[in-house]
Amino acid sequence: MFEVRRKSDVPLTEQIVREISERIQTGMLASQTQLPSVRTLANRLGVSLVTVVQAYRVLEQRGFVERIQGKGTYVRTRTRTPEQLQPTAPHQRFDWQLLLADYLPRAAVFRQHTESVDETPLKLSMAALCPSLSAASLPADLYTSIVQMPAMLTEYGPVEGLPSLRARLAVEFREAGLAVDVDEIFITNGVQQAIDIVARTFLGPGDVVVVEAPTYAGALDVFRACGANVISIPVDDQGLRTDLLLRQCDHKPPKLIYTMPAFHNPTSVVMSQQRRRALLDIATSYQCLILEDDSFSDCSFGVAVPPPLRADDDGGHVVYVRGFSKVFLPGCRLAAVVASGSVRNRLVAAKSVSDLGSPLITQRLVEHCLMDSGRRRRIEKIVNALRIKRDLALQTLAEHAPPGVTWNFPDGGYNLWVTLPDHVNADVLLVEAMRKGISFLPGSACYNGDLVYHHLRISYSYLEDDELVRAVRALCLLMSEAVTGQSRPFMPVI
Amino acid sequence: MFEVRRKSDVPLTEQIVREISERIQTGMLASQTQLPSVRTLANRLGVSLVTVVQAYRVLEQRGFVERIQGKGTYVRTRTRTPEQLQPTAPHQRFDWQLLLADYLPRAAVFRQHTESVDETPLKLSMAALCPSLSAASLPADLYTSIVQMPAMLTEYGPVEGLPSLRARLAVEFREAGLAVDVDEIFITNGVQQAIDIVARTFLGPGDVVVVEAPTYAGALDVFRACGANVISIPVDDQGLRTDLLLRQCDHKPPKLIYTMPAFHNPTSVVMSQQRRRALLDIATSYQCLILEDDSFSDCSFGVAVPPPLRADDDGGHVVYVRGFSKVFLPGCRLAAVVASGSVRNRLVAAKSVSDLGSPLITQRLVEHCLMDSGRRRRIEKIVNALRIKRDLALQTLAEHAPPGVTWNFPDGGYNLWVTLPDHVNADVLLVEAMRKGISFLPGSACYNGDLVYHHLRISYSYLEDDELVRAVRALCLLMSEAVTGQSRPFMPVI
Repeated sequence: MFEVRRKSDVPLTEQIVREISERIQTGMLASQTQLPSVRTLANRLGVSLVTVVQAYRVLEQRGFVERIQGKGTYVRTRTRTPEQLQPTAPHQRFDWQLLLADYLPRAAVFRQHTESVDETPLKLSMAALCPSLSAASLPADLYTSIVQMPAMLTEYGPVEGLPSLRARLAVEFREAGLAVDVDEIFITNGVQQAIDIVARTFLGPGDVVVVEAPTYAGALDVFRACGANVISIPVDDQGLRTDLLLRQCDHKPPKLIYTMPAFHNPTSVVMSQQRRRALLDIATSYQCLILEDDSFSDCSFGVAVPPPLRADDDGGHVVYVRGFSKVFLPGCRLAAVVASGSVRNRLVAAKSVSDLGSPLITQRLVEHCLMDSGRRRRIEKIVNALRIKRDLALQTLAEHAPPGVTWNFPDGGYNLWVTLPDHVNADVLLVEAMRKGISFLPGSACYNGDLVYHHLRISYSYLEDDELVRAVRALCLLMSEAVTGQSRPFMPVI
Repeated sequence: MFEVRRKSDVPLTEQIVREISERIQTGMLASQTQLPSVRTLANRLGVSLVTVVQAYRVLEQRGFVERIQGKGTYVRTRTRTPEQLQPTAPHQRFDWQLLLADYLPRAAVFRQHTESVDETPLKLSMAALCPSLSAASLPADLYTSIVQMPAMLTEYGPVEGLPSLRARLAVEFREAGLAVDVDEIFITNGVQQAIDIVARTFLGPGDVVVVEAPTYAGALDVFRACGANVISIPVDDQGLRTDLLLRQCDHKPPKLIYTMPAFHNPTSVVMSQQRRRALLDIATSYQCLILEDDSFSDCSFGVAVPPPLRADDDGGHVVYVRGFSKVFLPGCRLAAVVASGSVRNRLVAAKSVSDLGSPLITQRLVEHCLMDSGRRRRIEKIVNALRIKRDLALQTLAEHAPPGVTWNFPDGGYNLWVTLPDHVNADVLLVEAMRKGISFLPGSACYNGDLVYHHLRISYSYLEDDELVRAVRALCLLMSEAVTGQSRPFMPVI
């Protein structure tokens, strides 16, 4: 199922524990799956029996697996009640598969998505517009626009994306102070694919990539899947701590820096002008790439957001990604990437390897929305509605959150970042919350392997106003219980 | 731009030549790009100046680059006329980018796509339906079906794909003799993404993957990008030579075998029952995965195609990919993947890392096409029209192809595989053909690094009947000239 690294500083036992527990936590190993026998795994990995026995023992102690005398070792059920364990594994024929090495240590976004979509009605986890706002984001003649273009369905398009959409985006970007050439723009399936394409092109095993701590969970999944050496640099109220980044560069410069300068996810912080300049200077000095993820800059509650980093980049250091899924047409899952020189060529080649090009019809729909004359007005309405939601969430927290819980004040975006007292584990809180029908994003998903469990992200965007208040209030009640009662902060939640 | 491998059997000079020439051939290094200075590249790669000087000399000898005294080394222009070289590089600011290592040695599909779409009217290169057939593939009420579902545009869907589409596919597959559970099906952005997801999950540097020779160029791009050790096993008129595969397994078993048993691309061969059984036995004995790419099985001109390999796989060895882009809705770019056990879980996790899920609207459109009562009749019509196109292409070849040129007789699919005399280079022929407005797929794109230049693939599907005849006739004329006149078989074409 994986390989051990003999030259690593991490002991072999711990490597095995980490690899297996991560696969259990992110749902790649389902509950009740039987693990390989000690002998089989030891042979497969080329380690001693003792190492595997120790690893299985640690996994059992940490609550990930259950040993059943005379039968074997099984992944524990999510409900955490050992008596529900059914050791009659339904997929015995597939046991050999567990020994197949894979290269995907993490899929936190997948787990979060699956959990929140399927199981809970009150989704504080969804950083997306609520259905009523989402519907209001569409031009009235959108459907007519499709009906008039049957060719969109029957033709392959260019790998780079629909030429008319790219031309429109060039105009749009120029109006926003970002001078780009049409040839520098290509289309991807949302921000996630853009991150993935940049990472798979430029990050290989051991390459250093700097991420913000906390950061977007989906980006961590990608960087870890490349085998990159992920270094976390903290974010404060001015954005990425460039002073600490500089120290990292003096030690070992990164090849790529991944940042969200406008309404950072999950903290909603806007990076200051000073930090932006420092970041560009660092990229130029150390000849590294910056991946600028801009999904939320449209969504400001009144503050002026500086132009993208890319606007001040004249050396081709910044790969700028603009998501279109947030303020309109999430169902289209599209993003635009801006990149220059050979970096652009290599990224477009990677897009062709990934999927040959995004669908024409969704590109045409986004183009239609961009061209629509009522667009600015509609976005304004949506942003106003979001500001009201933010205020409702803040007010509810102020009234009901227990002492010791703090949160920030977002000037835009969809998310609130909540800090619990150190001893409270948000992963455990999430299990309780989901029993009450409430989901949120546990902060641990936004950190790379650090044991940071006392944060959580609330998205105020997805619930209608009354549901939002109800959900935040109920969450406050659970937080109160956790703050006073909880006593097992580092128990894993599977 | 890349790293050299000191432990490789390939000499350092040759490694540098290969990496750079491949980037030039696949368009990642544009013509007129200035290469790094000898000193800079030597420092960057940690090799001697002599090694780089030698490499640049070989690249010049092979026609890839041009040295300009006192200015530097430049990628030659595609037109191959040195006088057109403009050494005033437009992107001098981006020179530092050339030293950025990347992990994408090949993007043949991208190059092919860009060339054929943009530059030639007579596309014998496009394995896609011609516009008139494509339009005929759509149900009359398709657009109405979208208009009735605005939520498709505003909602995120599950990573695995639209539940109703997956349920429909389960029924469909069962009717075709492939018993699958809904949970075993997930949706990707076409076959290309499915191949990519399997490869990135299970193939790492040095892992052995077996491909058919020839094979689909886009799959080679993917496997090479993973750093996998790609082993080619020939295809004959019964399909993959399983006897040779078995010999490879005894030497070093592959982790993955990529095969197209139904109307193989590019040769259109159908794998025999005996070979299918042998292949499944091998996968079981050596515990490897089979990636079964099925894009054309719908498209048989009368012969009975055996059920997919997956139908006889009870050990979870086969990952089955069914493309929907060929017989209907290419613009939707969707495929379904069938996989079992932990392999399925890991692949869905990889899909989430790639893009969080395919768009809902295109999934709904494909579902609508599948549900439509007139579908079978429409597919039948399309297949009949394709058979006529095949016959037209075969007849034109028979009448006009020069002696020494041979081709196969496809019983289905979109492609004819043409073999030129050994001394004729199809890459060179393509340059001539494109000057006359004709494109085809040069066979070299379908081989992994082997110097096989005397094949080409003709897709008879994309041109209307009269254009098809005109294009094949013109191509025959060019082949005649090449057979008698051409004398530089191994000159690269950039």
